[in-house]
Amino acid sequence: MDFVPEKKFNPAVKRVIGVVSGKGGVGKSTVAVLLAQALAAKGRKVGVLDADITGPSLPRLLGVESFRAESDGQKLYPIVNEEGIKVLSINLFHEDEEAPVIWRGPLLGKAIEQFWTDADWGELDVLVVDFPPGTSDVALTAFQTIPFAGVIVVATPQDYVSMIVRKSIRMAEALKTPVLGVVENMRALICPKCGEEILLFDDGNARSAERLGLPLIVSLPWRREVAQAKSLRWSELPEEVRKDAAKMAFVAERAEAPAAPASPSAAPGS
Amino acid sequence: MDFVPEKKFNPAVKRVIGVVSGKGGVGKSTVAVLLAQALAAKGRKVGVLDADITGPSLPRLLGVESFRAESDGQKLYPIVNEEGIKVLSINLFHEDEEAPVIWRGPLLGKAIEQFWTDADWGELDVLVVDFPPGTSDVALTAFQTIPFAGVIVVATPQDYVSMIVRKSIRMAEALKTPVLGVVENMRALICPKCGEEILLFDDGNARSAERLGLPLIVSLPWRREVAQAKSLRWSELPEEVRKDAAKMAFVAERAEAPAAPASPSAAPGS
Repeated sequence: MDFVPEKKFNPAVKRVIGVVSGKGGVGKSTVAVLLAQALAAKGRKVGVLDADITGPSLPRLLGVESFRAESDGQKLYPIVNEEGIKVLSINLFHEDEEAPVIWRGPLLGKAIEQFWTDADWGELDVLVVDFPPGTSDVALTAFQTIPFAGVIVVATPQDYVSMIVRKSIRMAEALKTPVLGVVENMRALICPKCGEEILLFDDGNARSAERLGLPLIVSLPWRREVAQAKSLRWSELPEEVRKDAAKMAFVAERAEAPAAPASPSAAPGS
Repeated sequence: MDFVPEKKFNPAVKRVIGVVSGKGGVGKSTVAVLLAQALAAKGRKVGVLDADITGPSLPRLLGVESFRAESDGQKLYPIVNEEGIKVLSINLFHEDEEAPVIWRGPLLGKAIEQFWTDADWGELDVLVVDFPPGTSDVALTAFQTIPFAGVIVVATPQDYVSMIVRKSIRMAEALKTPVLGVVENMRALICPKCGEEILLFDDGNARSAERLGLPLIVSLPWRREVAQAKSLRWSELPEEVRKDAAKMAFVAERAEAPAAPASPSAAPGS
């Protein structure tokens, strides 16, 4: 297997941030959407690439599930949601959002490559890439093809989750992609009746970021209004959620994008 | 793509049950382990095949993560845990359980095929297969290669999760595999201070099984002692958890295994 990256640069996209975990169901898509919304709320031009081809949740979370992305045979055109965020997801190309994508891996990798190299993203300050679980084709192709400024790791404070998340961190490192820090998710919830803080995993002090040896960007409590939301709207999110999301945006904007190699594709103004 | 199943039969294994979801993080591995343990507690000979190659959690949950499976070049030999359950997982072949498996999909599919056809499972009443998230190589190869008696679907009561879970159900149907019912997970937890039942997803009456149009096998509440457990031991599980698991075992044992085609490999006594 060839791990040497042949990254494709797009000078119109200033910075690409990955949201990874290795493990499914820890809240990657929610984190990707909150990050994108926090950046958009600061006036940044933002896109989100849904790299979870077989389990895409971004169109619903961003409220564009009834739209269909278009292609003129040359380029794929992202959908723009009402908050101005551009989105590409495999589900925007299906008539039927419940249709399973029964593709073998190389085709999945190809789809990701197209979402990056054949899409008309226009000018973007930040493109957020929502990774699928696992360390196979899609993740591999994404790391090899896209020049990430860095990745944000999402984890829940569970022992075996940390083990699986670490696989994903080691993959990023092996593919020379900086890991920016950890968003810890679902540590606790507040009882709506008595106000008790209930730890969901009873993990004592062994918090996700510490276990993973990475800086903690923010710890998101369980919030039912987020977990059960059909879609997330920035203007309707509780103030604390927006503050938490702003911390992710802060970290993402400070990540340094890798320089494109000196070549015609990276020439000024191209 | 060739969807025509070329199933491989193993007459020593009476019944194979898949645990699927499409979505990650909904509790598939926990359900697979509880099902296996409930069957073992009834005296059945049980094996568990961890089909989640890039995010394997079964060795820890079954308490065998420090063991290493062996191969003599002909056969793979499952590890037997202290409850008598046989286990095969990619993590039982690594020295380092945090090493990422950065394989492209066809290799993942190949690994699953080997876990089924090249493993010495011995005589089993039930083999439980814990699927990975997604509908790509591993799921496809598993459905094509293994003659399942049926699959149990695991879902959380969230709108977009139902959408993704449905992809997995439709994949099973497309590949002629019976869907036995739904295990709903994480609907609610009980506040340890005031006893309030807190719905995690505020889903009203739109429960997972109803949404999916399938029979509900059991609804598992959030139980911290299960969620945070390093491993699950049947003898230490709360009585209610064992009762819930027994319902899964009941359904699994009533699923009819497909008949092997009349061929030498299915001859009596083979």
